[in-house]
Amino acid sequence: MEILKEKIRREGKALNENVLKVDGFINHQVDSELMEQIGEEFANYFGVKNIDKVVTIESSGIAPAVMTARKLNKKLVILKKKTSKVLSDDFLQTPVISFTKGEEYNLIMSKKFVNEGERVIIIDDFLANGEACSGAIRLLKEVGANIVGIGILIEKSFQPGREKLENMGMDVYSLARIKSLAEGKIEFVGE
Amino acid sequence: MEILKEKIRREGKALNENVLKVDGFINHQVDSELMEQIGEEFANYFGVKNIDKVVTIESSGIAPAVMTARKLNKKLVILKKKTSKVLSDDFLQTPVISFTKGEEYNLIMSKKFVNEGERVIIIDDFLANGEACSGAIRLLKEVGANIVGIGILIEKSFQPGREKLENMGMDVYSLARIKSLAEGKIEFVGE
Repeated sequence: MEILKEKIRREGKALNENVLKVDGFINHQVDSELMEQIGEEFANYFGVKNIDKVVTIESSGIAPAVMTARKLNKKLVILKKKTSKVLSDDFLQTPVISFTKGEEYNLIMSKKFVNEGERVIIIDDFLANGEACSGAIRLLKEVGANIVGIGILIEKSFQPGREKLENMGMDVYSLARIKSLAEGKIEFVGE
Repeated sequence: MEILKEKIRREGKALNENVLKVDGFINHQVDSELMEQIGEEFANYFGVKNIDKVVTIESSGIAPAVMTARKLNKKLVILKKKTSKVLSDDFLQTPVISFTKGEEYNLIMSKKFVNEGERVIIIDDFLANGEACSGAIRLLKEVGANIVGIGILIEKSFQPGREKLENMGMDVYSLARIKSLAEGKIEFVGE
């Protein structure tokens, strides 16, 4: 998506060879117009696949995901991160270790909101090692949902997330694919 | 806002006299169409006041706030909750104790994204004791922002949040004001 790549070129910052800072338009300050354009792009790509629900992981995925859900005229389900275990029959949970952030948490989903056979997409801001997405996939498979695709804003293609998800048979659609962040330079795949 | 009140009447649940469960359309599953309508309502109400930025607190406020920001054609700033102190000159932080959830956290804002004299509104899902909002106000006043108003989806009017915010001179606009949740019954103010 050229408009997102252009924004990353102008306002993103390669803090080191692994970390891309986009806190001015995605993570901390959010460009609401860009989020709507991103929602439209995902809705165009996935809309032909008869989606029942959009799923995201709190909290940076929520803004683009709610815009995507709106464009598809569907509901959004937000998977929650909890540092403690939630003991309740109403919830499913799975542990996630984020290498990027050096944190460990439980990803939580109420059983009520995604049903067997429903066609869902997962939207998230970053794909690096694919840990959060893999956790979401585990929860969604546990209720028997049909995961039709994964929409990512920024993929760090030099990390193994995409390969891991594709090996599970997932269709990964990333709007910006970063080849390298070495030496403070942001390079995209295919450029 | 009648459409939100109707949704609460039909799908909300008074778990006890203090807790209203709205996880089917606001907190966990999100009704994206309702969020757009809410964004429109806030934009109509606050739009005349020349807003520069919309501010919210992660994570349940993000969906309605990004819709509000979109309708106003402005950027959204998400204040983050951290359980640890963030030691950096780039960030402001203030401690918040949530009586409702029994948790304590630091509310964090980067200094970059809200500037002196900017006209901002705060959007949040619930107003109960006003602790989170008061924290946001402290951070925004520290950078010299002009807090033009506070938009709330659901106000628990039997708790002291509104009074506290009004005593600070704030214009609080709540879309649904709950008078009582006693005996499993949801009663609205003025009904």
